[in-house]
Amino acid sequence: MSKIHKDETRRTVIYGTHPVMETIRAGRRKVYEIFLVKGSDVEKRVGQEFESARFNLRYMSGIELDSLTHDVKNQGIAARVEPFPYDDFETEISRLKGNERFSVLVLDQIQDPNNLGNVLRSACCFGVDLVILSRDRAVSVTPSAEKASAGSTAHVKICRVTNLNRSIETLKAIGSWVYGADSASGTSHFEADFSGKTVLVMGAEGAGLRRLVRENCDIMIKIPITGPVGSLNVSNATSIILAEIYRQSTSPGTKRRN
Amino acid sequence: MSKIHKDETRRTVIYGTHPVMETIRAGRRKVYEIFLVKGSDVEKRVGQEFESARFNLRYMSGIELDSLTHDVKNQGIAARVEPFPYDDFETEISRLKGNERFSVLVLDQIQDPNNLGNVLRSACCFGVDLVILSRDRAVSVTPSAEKASAGSTAHVKICRVTNLNRSIETLKAIGSWVYGADSASGTSHFEADFSGKTVLVMGAEGAGLRRLVRENCDIMIKIPITGPVGSLNVSNATSIILAEIYRQSTSPGTKRRN
Repeated sequence: MSKIHKDETRRTVIYGTHPVMETIRAGRRKVYEIFLVKGSDVEKRVGQEFESARFNLRYMSGIELDSLTHDVKNQGIAARVEPFPYDDFETEISRLKGNERFSVLVLDQIQDPNNLGNVLRSACCFGVDLVILSRDRAVSVTPSAEKASAGSTAHVKICRVTNLNRSIETLKAIGSWVYGADSASGTSHFEADFSGKTVLVMGAEGAGLRRLVRENCDIMIKIPITGPVGSLNVSNATSIILAEIYRQSTSPGTKRRN
Repeated sequence: MSKIHKDETRRTVIYGTHPVMETIRAGRRKVYEIFLVKGSDVEKRVGQEFESARFNLRYMSGIELDSLTHDVKNQGIAARVEPFPYDDFETEISRLKGNERFSVLVLDQIQDPNNLGNVLRSACCFGVDLVILSRDRAVSVTPSAEKASAGSTAHVKICRVTNLNRSIETLKAIGSWVYGADSASGTSHFEADFSGKTVLVMGAEGAGLRRLVRENCDIMIKIPITGPVGSLNVSNATSIILAEIYRQSTSPGTKRRN
């Protein structure tokens, strides 16, 4: 096992059927070695195919794989790959600059890998053009976030930036309208006009948006809710707003007033 | 510690600020003992108040509490309480029967406590009148689901039933319209009419709805999505549809066509 862990700072082990299969399918990231549990469902399905494709394949027991991935949710498959290949912010801005419309999701200090993964899965399903993560005090795209994303991390464009406010300024400079989500105040997200260059900024679990980030938003929106609990889980809140942004992008001019 | 674990079949230990505080606030469930970590944020905030209220209070170290809750996400507070008090299905049906509109959420074999907790939190925020869980091959309302629900389990009406299809039949008999969610087929959920007695049926992670449950639905709906991944996390999908059901309930007659 020591060979696998060697040089771990520059390589990482992702796991789970979707993360591994989507990483291979997307072809954006070097795959050094694939680990399969002999006799597992996934091995029966793809083992032969992987052998034909001449992947560097290693069979192991379920217990060995659990130990390698530090997580039993590996579904019998893992892969040693390049570290997560974040996209370059300036390059992505140049790509988006000429578009008449786009949607960008900015995550301000999300802490939980499961939430991050779920958010990235929704971002992928709702055609988000770019996700921006803060580098400080935030979870990065870890193997467990990749697992929760069901392989979406292989497809979504994701940047990590040091200064979130400067990135928001840059997005404004190319004509974006910046929406900050808040559970307590703002316009209903159903009444917002997401027809143009839309940037959605979501805050951390519990804490919400930081003050400076909030002040940098053009408009605050909230999801209408009721009852004693007072806020949704951040991945659910993000998904609900992204669903509406996507709906407006596919049905222009259907913004509604409640 | 042995005293705490005694009689555990009839008592359970919930943890986390929201689950404990909301359980106390809702008053639906017997609280036998509260555990606080001396010097924790929550102890500073509520320790004095709990002592005045003559709760059966026990201070312990963080390590002791982690061991008691089997989870480090306890935020310094836990409570030994009655097992989760599920509501009685027949009683709830009698309560809903006379209403002109209501929303009921049926979960067909959700497996993950985190997903269940997030779904219950959204159900609470979108004023769902009743949640129905299948008893077989499904996660129940465990302390970790209660933690993920941010205390919503103290407020939402939740039944567990053995025969999900019979419950759906009963809901139909009192005039409900039953919507099954599917990632692959059906009407866009934005085009559905949720203005009456609405039942939403969500399937398990990965597997989706079972065949008989699906056949029991009046209409299949799907959330319009794009991209290679093909489906949303079940808690996100549920939240997105509940948001639309709630919107229509607060803005009658605003069903839109895309």
